[in-house]
Amino acid sequence: MKFKRTERMGAIVKILSDNPNKVFTLSFFTEKFNAAKSTISEDILVVKNVFEKLNLGKVVTIAGAAGGVKYIPKISDEDNEIFLKELCEKINEPSRILAGGFLYLIDLIYNPEISSKIGKIFASYIDYSEADYIVTIETKGIPMALMTAKAMNLPLVIIRKDTKVSEGSSLNITYMSGSNKIVQTMTLPRKALKEGSKVILIDDFMRGGGTLRGMEDLMAEFNAQVIGKGVLISTSSPKEKLVKDYISLLELKEVDEKKGIIKVEPNKDFIIN
Amino acid sequence: MKFKRTERMGAIVKILSDNPNKVFTLSFFTEKFNAAKSTISEDILVVKNVFEKLNLGKVVTIAGAAGGVKYIPKISDEDNEIFLKELCEKINEPSRILAGGFLYLIDLIYNPEISSKIGKIFASYIDYSEADYIVTIETKGIPMALMTAKAMNLPLVIIRKDTKVSEGSSLNITYMSGSNKIVQTMTLPRKALKEGSKVILIDDFMRGGGTLRGMEDLMAEFNAQVIGKGVLISTSSPKEKLVKDYISLLELKEVDEKKGIIKVEPNKDFIIN
Repeated sequence: MKFKRTERMGAIVKILSDNPNKVFTLSFFTEKFNAAKSTISEDILVVKNVFEKLNLGKVVTIAGAAGGVKYIPKISDEDNEIFLKELCEKINEPSRILAGGFLYLIDLIYNPEISSKIGKIFASYIDYSEADYIVTIETKGIPMALMTAKAMNLPLVIIRKDTKVSEGSSLNITYMSGSNKIVQTMTLPRKALKEGSKVILIDDFMRGGGTLRGMEDLMAEFNAQVIGKGVLISTSSPKEKLVKDYISLLELKEVDEKKGIIKVEPNKDFIIN
Repeated sequence: MKFKRTERMGAIVKILSDNPNKVFTLSFFTEKFNAAKSTISEDILVVKNVFEKLNLGKVVTIAGAAGGVKYIPKISDEDNEIFLKELCEKINEPSRILAGGFLYLIDLIYNPEISSKIGKIFASYIDYSEADYIVTIETKGIPMALMTAKAMNLPLVIIRKDTKVSEGSSLNITYMSGSNKIVQTMTLPRKALKEGSKVILIDDFMRGGGTLRGMEDLMAEFNAQVIGKGVLISTSSPKEKLVKDYISLLELKEVDEKKGIIKVEPNKDFIIN
């Protein structure tokens, strides 16, 4: 079958954007479209320009034997800001305040459209060029962590809170979670991480940082190096967290159960040292 | 800014395929590309043909006031078969057998590339035209359920095994899980589902069907109607499950811990009545 340029273009865009950060060789496309290398090279040049002109991320060519072309998702600062502002408006609905001052957020953070956007934002601001895994802890952070892993083309690892007989021998640690001040367990099968890996931690919410600190401790047990940390929301108080060098997209400044006030705002510069 | 046809095409493909089942109006595109309606209509016709010719799913036009264009992901039977066969080959590695005859599968089912493919397959075989939610239970089914929700453009609901103080008042049921024959709890916040919803249940693994049956019971508490059920793997024994009318992509025929044999195969016709 022969294809027109517009058809090849459309298909290349679809394949690249469905598989972020995955390298496709030129031969993959020449075979698929029954076309010459020079033709495909020209197609890819056009695709590159489309992505650049419309701020849809970046298409890069990798030289050498293992070379080819891949798509790096990157959301523009402007689009990020619009998305995060809209998300804050949704979060700041007084009806979201639950007894005890907790926030009902699962309809938002489980939403595939929202979680995939959050994943792409993490992929735009966390350097994952050397990362081997995305690591999260069950349950609420899983959707955004999976979408981050998808955007970065990395495998996802999920830390459990109880050891499962069905996952083989595992490493456990205990930690103190900030929100309910009780000692909890986290556990991960031995097979889940290769020795000496580099990982990025993702979680939905951080108050004191106890959970992320526990995740760091567990990673140390696997001789894994934490090279990045991202949370969707961190609270402004306590100011001192148990972890450093994390990216927090939003800041929870106030929850007043009696007055029915929630104040969550986008973090100005994301990165907190 | 003005755009060439190839540029508009590329961008339209990207936008549609990033947002399955989401309707975009013609005006959305005419504004974005500063182009006439007739021009955009022609672009969309070309996009339709590309998707059809290359088996990338379907682009459909919706008439009327709320009209526009949307992309319906659909993987061809042939591609499904190839993918599921390859997945079975990976699963059938003897090193995956754990003590007790359990299978180590989390590296596969947490993988974003694999889980997104599974989601698209569920979206190709389960009728979701009337569905309001995808519902799963923590933890292992979450990645594939989220990707199913993404492909169907539906919100995801995650049933928890313990009540969380941080999610508000909830409905709980007890159920008997087939694999460990103990009474367990499942729980869902009252706010998680609208009264009278239609839902599709997704889970990773089914032996006796106790978990899915429990999910059905919980849905009944919400007056929700279960209109579809999908699992990745079901076991061939017991043949009689506690639920009917489900789609199972793979069948686990045998696990022999001593001999180191696993036999998982694609289900011939998916749908089991």
